[in-house]
Amino acid sequence: MVEEATVKRSARVTRQRILDAAVLRFSRHSYEETTLRDIATDVGVDVALVHRAFGSKEELFEQAVKSTIDGDFQQAAQAPDPGLAMTSHFVQSRLSSASGKADPLNILVHSLNSHRASPILRELVQQDFIQPLAARLPEGELGAALAIACLAGVALLRDVLGIAALRVADDEEIRPIVAKLMRACLGSTAEPDAHGVRPPQ
Amino acid sequence: MVEEATVKRSARVTRQRILDAAVLRFSRHSYEETTLRDIATDVGVDVALVHRAFGSKEELFEQAVKSTIDGDFQQAAQAPDPGLAMTSHFVQSRLSSASGKADPLNILVHSLNSHRASPILRELVQQDFIQPLAARLPEGELGAALAIACLAGVALLRDVLGIAALRVADDEEIRPIVAKLMRACLGSTAEPDAHGVRPPQ
Repeated sequence: MVEEATVKRSARVTRQRILDAAVLRFSRHSYEETTLRDIATDVGVDVALVHRAFGSKEELFEQAVKSTIDGDFQQAAQAPDPGLAMTSHFVQSRLSSASGKADPLNILVHSLNSHRASPILRELVQQDFIQPLAARLPEGELGAALAIACLAGVALLRDVLGIAALRVADDEEIRPIVAKLMRACLGSTAEPDAHGVRPPQ
Repeated sequence: MVEEATVKRSARVTRQRILDAAVLRFSRHSYEETTLRDIATDVGVDVALVHRAFGSKEELFEQAVKSTIDGDFQQAAQAPDPGLAMTSHFVQSRLSSASGKADPLNILVHSLNSHRASPILRELVQQDFIQPLAARLPEGELGAALAIACLAGVALLRDVLGIAALRVADDEEIRPIVAKLMRACLGSTAEPDAHGVRPPQ
């Protein structure tokens, strides 16, 4: 029994190491450039073991992207005022460099053009970002999709293209504008003022 | 004299054909995947001629991207209400499929990760999109950069990733939200109402 538990734990550890190696590869190379053999070599295991653990390259790619998606975003989408919560989450997670977590944006931009990877990415953006938010909104999917598009665009120009004005701006400069963007797409993102009146939208 | 004019015209035509071939290549392949030899082969000229006409791969890439940038955007940035003009331009040029012009977004997403191409793209976004707009704004570069980021994000999720809610939405659904986004970044983008009162921002 002890041995069986040890074997299971060891399999879990190996699975996680494969996933971490996949995230690193897919963050630096396109879907097409990356092979399961590369990932197996990075981990020091046989490629057959990678196949056994994840089934296929598509499935490993999907699991790798999923593992970089921050559960806090889903929580923000469920908050009483999702726009306000998403603004705080975006500003904190993106503008503070302390997160240390792999950035799903890096995987996205490397494999956006891949005929194999692009449908997987589209489905993940749809299911993990747009739908949880759309379910909360009278505006539905269009408002949610536009909100996600704005956040993706800001992240892209700031962190991938390195646009100076976005890199040098601090939290307090960016936060009110991101809040207005979320309000434009999602409705209220501002606390009522002292008189209980929400600012005009 | 007639011969000299003919030679000049022929050189101009060849230069344009090289540029068109470069746009097509860079719209479908990354900067690294594309060679001057490929482009020369597409046009049916010697690679030395491509070198002579454009100097280097970097310069040809820059000229190719510049040739896809729509002068109408620059005009919109100069309009009395740039946010309103940019909204109209964005909705018309992007959502109507009739334009037929090469999309600079395709070149951007293929070469965003290239160490050689990315600085060229950053400089073009900065000079051709952000600066003309920033010069008009009290908010300066940050507001302009955020406005461009939103438009880029919407275009990316709609036209590259193919997010359904954005693809099926028509002009009239998207226009008021894009106008609000531009207003959030740039200030007024709405006509005063019948009483001459601008909507709250």
